[in-house]
Amino acid sequence: MNKEITIYDIAKDLGVSPTTVSRALNDHPAVNTKTKQRIFEAADQMGYRSNVFASNLRRKSTNNIGIIVPRLNSSFQSSVLAGMEKVANEAGFNLIISQSLESYEKEKANARSMFNSRVDGLLVSLAGNTEKTEHFQAFMDKGIPVLFFDRVASQTGCTGVIIDNRQAGYNATKHLIQQGCKHIVHVLGNLNINVYAERLKGYKYALMDHDIAFSQDNVIHSDLNEEAGEDIAKKIMAMKPMPDGLFVSNDACAASCIRSLKQAGIAIPGDIAVVGFNNDVISRLIEPNLTTTHYPGYEMGEVAMKNLINHLSDSTEGVLQNTNTITLRSELIIRDSSLKKKSEA
Amino acid sequence: MNKEITIYDIAKDLGVSPTTVSRALNDHPAVNTKTKQRIFEAADQMGYRSNVFASNLRRKSTNNIGIIVPRLNSSFQSSVLAGMEKVANEAGFNLIISQSLESYEKEKANARSMFNSRVDGLLVSLAGNTEKTEHFQAFMDKGIPVLFFDRVASQTGCTGVIIDNRQAGYNATKHLIQQGCKHIVHVLGNLNINVYAERLKGYKYALMDHDIAFSQDNVIHSDLNEEAGEDIAKKIMAMKPMPDGLFVSNDACAASCIRSLKQAGIAIPGDIAVVGFNNDVISRLIEPNLTTTHYPGYEMGEVAMKNLINHLSDSTEGVLQNTNTITLRSELIIRDSSLKKKSEA
Repeated sequence: MNKEITIYDIAKDLGVSPTTVSRALNDHPAVNTKTKQRIFEAADQMGYRSNVFASNLRRKSTNNIGIIVPRLNSSFQSSVLAGMEKVANEAGFNLIISQSLESYEKEKANARSMFNSRVDGLLVSLAGNTEKTEHFQAFMDKGIPVLFFDRVASQTGCTGVIIDNRQAGYNATKHLIQQGCKHIVHVLGNLNINVYAERLKGYKYALMDHDIAFSQDNVIHSDLNEEAGEDIAKKIMAMKPMPDGLFVSNDACAASCIRSLKQAGIAIPGDIAVVGFNNDVISRLIEPNLTTTHYPGYEMGEVAMKNLINHLSDSTEGVLQNTNTITLRSELIIRDSSLKKKSEA
Repeated sequence: MNKEITIYDIAKDLGVSPTTVSRALNDHPAVNTKTKQRIFEAADQMGYRSNVFASNLRRKSTNNIGIIVPRLNSSFQSSVLAGMEKVANEAGFNLIISQSLESYEKEKANARSMFNSRVDGLLVSLAGNTEKTEHFQAFMDKGIPVLFFDRVASQTGCTGVIIDNRQAGYNATKHLIQQGCKHIVHVLGNLNINVYAERLKGYKYALMDHDIAFSQDNVIHSDLNEEAGEDIAKKIMAMKPMPDGLFVSNDACAASCIRSLKQAGIAIPGDIAVVGFNNDVISRLIEPNLTTTHYPGYEMGEVAMKNLINHLSDSTEGVLQNTNTITLRSELIIRDSSLKKKSEA
């Protein structure tokens, strides 16, 4: 590796004083524009690296923000990250990203690594089997803000950015009831994760409010992946009588259910009306097009990052402490997969 | 912010010498297991941060690897990132991730920021309008390895990890010809990007090898997004005679073409056989299922990161210099959307 270029090298090269170089690189008004320009060009050509690293050490700040997500290869999480990156980049922050792979142990190790790397703040969407949040206590003790998004921890004093999953589940179920469905199955993921637990509540409340009895037999737990659709379709076809409504907690899984049901000769929505969740691309391409809840991932990323950065730059440090939950608007998008009564749409 | 906990604080708290604490935290054999355990627990409880930051400064290494992608919210890129994170995490490296949003200027700014943050290495998939790679020269001058993936720079001495896009384009086109197609349209993205330029070459060579004349009229340039499908379908239906084969350079766009063509009463593959690219989830859910090229994004991420890390840990520093291109296996997956001759499949 080459020798590190210093302001003394640049000064020598241009025949100016090191003080002038230092001032120019910090955009000091005492140095005229032309000289600044010459110094910038020389710095670039010589491969000078502004001493962010050492100055970070002095400021005890790295300008790095840590992000831990369950999985990077998820359509929803990648939208969230895109929104976060845009906001962070514009504000001059770098993102350090890791995935927990749905493992509490890995999440804990990632948090420890980010703590040691001295991130300025942390954004987390929890792993499926995370039940405790003590692994974030060290951040809080140091006054490093931790903010949760999508999959949030209820028991901490930290801010969470979410949608109202209970209301979204309620609206999806109510829509199916309004379409004439009387026997509605709900397919959902790990109940340890708030988003699924809340949607289930919404499903139950909607049934109750419309005098339909809730039965545990109508709840199917699943990995919600693409492959799960076939298995779920089999379970549904084995129910007697067969359900006339299906509310699946993600679009890829709902789409794969539709495919399997259609292959078995079942009409969608005639025999069974189907509703998904997320508004992924797949929901607009599957036939019939899938009724779903629009989940604003990109916007969630932007909002979470903006709040974290505002907190970092606010000397009063009161922004996040006073806000416990930021709820974004979600929306039921009605398409053909659930429209038993076209005229009422 | 609280006072930083030091080894002296831990030593005082436990009544042992600072040397013992330092040795224990570095897993020195001279400290017995029980004492180590006590020291680890105290360090955890007191919120001690191992001095990675300062030791990085001494070692002139950050254990951070920079990644620049065109967009984070892309099914392909998020698979690549997932593969990269897994390998990096296991090797004790953090990822600093940014997106160029297909802009050369932003890519340049991101590279500058990563250079100043002193990343140990850089992985890049180029923006659509990047024609020069001088913005990576500063890394090379410092001996910081730069490795390209998917969208690579041909003119540098840097290693690129790719698939053989030309062969993949050739195979897709040849398959359509073997299915009896004589008038094949190719839809592709920005030709400045190597992957599209190479696939176009493959398309041309396959036509030539089968005595079909190439015509510029059969090449449609597109953003390749979900919305583009409708527009492409219109163009195809306006061609006289209408084409009998369609090779689209990504699955979401191919799927949306299929939907628009079907809505206009055109039979797939009867009237026109369709082939996509990437093997995204959508290719397995659209009806008919889409013939496509399996593009191993996760594996590409793993391979790129492994090579970079091997280079960093290899004192001979010769690994990347001697390898200019790493080509991963891709594969044409034949499904119903292109099977005009079922018996030959």
